Amino acid sequence: MNLSEMNKEQLIGFKNETEALYNDFKAQGLCLNMSRGNPCKEQLELSMDMLSVFDDGDFMSENGIDVRNYGLLDGIPEAKKLFSDMIGVNEHEVIIFGNSSLNAMFWAVQTAFNKGILGEKPWSQCGKVKFLCPVPGYDRHFKVTEFFGIEMINIPMTADGPDMDMIEKLVAEDDSIKGIWCVPQYSNPDGISYSDETVKRFAALKPAAKDFRIFWDNAYCIHHLTDSPTIILNILDEAKKAGNEDIVYIFGSTSKITFPGAGVAVMGASQKNVEELKKHLGISIISYDKMNQLRHVKFFGTFKNMCEHMKKHMAIIAPKFEIVCQTLEKEIAPLGIGSWTKPEGGYFVSFNALNGCAKRIVQLCSEAGVTLTGAGATFPYGVDPDDKNIRIAPTYPPVDELKKAMELFVICVKLASAEKLLAE
Amino acid sequence: MNLSEMNKEQLIGFKNETEALYNDFKAQGLCLNMSRGNPCKEQLELSMDMLSVFDDGDFMSENGIDVRNYGLLDGIPEAKKLFSDMIGVNEHEVIIFGNSSLNAMFWAVQTAFNKGILGEKPWSQCGKVKFLCPVPGYDRHFKVTEFFGIEMINIPMTADGPDMDMIEKLVAEDDSIKGIWCVPQYSNPDGISYSDETVKRFAALKPAAKDFRIFWDNAYCIHHLTDSPTIILNILDEAKKAGNEDIVYIFGSTSKITFPGAGVAVMGASQKNVEELKKHLGISIISYDKMNQLRHVKFFGTFKNMCEHMKKHMAIIAPKFEIVCQTLEKEIAPLGIGSWTKPEGGYFVSFNALNGCAKRIVQLCSEAGVTLTGAGATFPYGVDPDDKNIRIAPTYPPVDELKKAMELFVICVKLASAEKLLAE
Repeated sequence: MNLSEMNKEQLIGFKNETEALYNDFKAQGLCLNMSRGNPCKEQLELSMDMLSVFDDGDFMSENGIDVRNYGLLDGIPEAKKLFSDMIGVNEHEVIIFGNSSLNAMFWAVQTAFNKGILGEKPWSQCGKVKFLCPVPGYDRHFKVTEFFGIEMINIPMTADGPDMDMIEKLVAEDDSIKGIWCVPQYSNPDGISYSDETVKRFAALKPAAKDFRIFWDNAYCIHHLTDSPTIILNILDEAKKAGNEDIVYIFGSTSKITFPGAGVAVMGASQKNVEELKKHLGISIISYDKMNQLRHVKFFGTFKNMCEHMKKHMAIIAPKFEIVCQTLEKEIAPLGIGSWTKPEGGYFVSFNALNGCAKRIVQLCSEAGVTLTGAGATFPYGVDPDDKNIRIAPTYPPVDELKKAMELFVICVKLASAEKLLAE
Repeated sequence: MNLSEMNKEQLIGFKNETEALYNDFKAQGLCLNMSRGNPCKEQLELSMDMLSVFDDGDFMSENGIDVRNYGLLDGIPEAKKLFSDMIGVNEHEVIIFGNSSLNAMFWAVQTAFNKGILGEKPWSQCGKVKFLCPVPGYDRHFKVTEFFGIEMINIPMTADGPDMDMIEKLVAEDDSIKGIWCVPQYSNPDGISYSDETVKRFAALKPAAKDFRIFWDNAYCIHHLTDSPTIILNILDEAKKAGNEDIVYIFGSTSKITFPGAGVAVMGASQKNVEELKKHLGISIISYDKMNQLRHVKFFGTFKNMCEHMKKHMAIIAPKFEIVCQTLEKEIAPLGIGSWTKPEGGYFVSFNALNGCAKRIVQLCSEAGVTLTGAGATFPYGVDPDDKNIRIAPTYPPVDELKKAMELFVICVKLASAEKLLAE
């Protein structure tokens, strides 16, 4: 029975029953963390062979540079080849970074802020600077723009990606809008892949600001949860067709392919962008960890092998996403107190509770020992205007713990929903 | 015979003889690079065992975190212990970075520039901002401050370190002076270690700017070339005694201990500084490469072992410094056309030619196939007011090549000096 159709008496009964279940859980003294999209131990084990690739004693990059020494600011050639394939650019359109694409994004914003882009004024001298933020989105993106005092404007997500009508209108009108954060394939947290039309419209944007950039964080480009994934269009190819190739900065990493703590991050952009960015980058570093770049190249060999490797990840984590969705389907769907995505890739299930319930649900879970991403985190400034979105990260806990955590989660959703409906 | 005592005829004879030797060299078609302080292959081989430390299959940090996964922004506890010992701070006064201390320094300046330090206004909002730059110094330091539009003021070096009278006066008078670049142990390029008095005077500085910071780049803290090294005083200890503990940011790395391309960098500062810096750092990265941190910890175990390891480096590179100094002593000293340091550690020999000759010497070497660090690079904006300083980096070339390169170098010094004296 839909909870909103219950009368007060039924609701009180439902709430009391749920509360009893909740208190039983609380008594168990759980201690589970589902707050971040961490790979689990079994996933980390998949890349163990990467640690012995140097047993061959060969530390030479294909251009004759010893990867153990200084040099090669933008990466060894073979890493540029491998990772340019991954993010869909050519070898002149790529820079290899350290272990963190977030760090590369921060650096790219910092550079625009302090030095400007392709001859335009530094953003720090532009007065008010704004970014568009499709919501819900990735909290760490929002923190970067907040760090630089950049005003963030929420853009609603649709099943095809962000609301393009709104984006096209805003960027055409307002030259203080300098960028937008996008996770185009399996968006964080909704798991939405941008439609071909959305990518084409992004590629053809005509912003008032010449130094407007799309921050295209393709974090989950090969992180599929099905055998027949839908791959988004190549944004740089589309931008070139539209005579607009400087508009996009592409990011990616192997954090969820090899090791989150010791992967390789990468940035792609037009050659013109890349040439300028490298000049700035060379001020801040001599070279990133080229041994780790070569480790990745020796381990994978080709991008095709990297994609094969991802199937092993899928085998481990797809069942976990099943557990989350099945539990919600069984326990929440009949009550009409929430909606969620069933993602075909990425790292999250995005759950929308009844308006005004997200914080309470996260609080209830926390008090019973399960830590979720803070409610509101998926919005700029941590403010979810409807207080309804919760990001569920199922990959890290073992299956048993995940089941237990989801049992608790649905109880908390029920309890918070009943409380809300009773208070109305 | 001192070149300046020669008459014109003698000088012409000397020049012609030298020119003939130079042309012989040119005909050999050499191709040697002595431009940067790169360790040589034999030095890189010293750390090969670091690549098998994970054969034990143990990836757990001592606090139970799997180093392969996300987390631990400021480093694993055992790395904080090891590297805090290296730079002379305690475990609450340290942040472990990626593979580049230059990157950590850039980040620290960027943070001060965009966010300010301990409640003071961001430097970007302070109008003119200035840095003091002991000269000659490290070109990459100067490039960082130049990137942010910070005005650089040359400070002469003495045998005890930078001119402290001048520094004390300037920082007391001018609150737009926000920092100073220092390489206190075996300075780059002079190889000068700051005297106890110098360190104490730094520690006791009373700058007009509350957010003045000493950027104490202790890059060569254990990079000795003798068995009885003189170690500089601990700046943070001295600053604490002076009630001035927030004044210094300390940097170090293993770039020239393990691998330049894949070492570990570290920053030390008062706990108050570190706490604030970590808040900012967490915006730009989740964690640096903790696998590489643990690799270093497993390889070295203790700081004492790290110091022992450095003796192996010394055995390889001290003879190369000998070659440089002996060649200069034999070929240049009798002619009175240059002076140089005989460093007890670090990576460079700093050569001072007759005024106005450095660019010409570097050009002559280059045209005969030996690349040196660009003349002027050791000064802010690349401008050596006397055009006399050249940084010689002897570590990378094999002994035979180094001998050859030094033969050529002294010929070029002689030729440029004769040209200069003849033109007067």
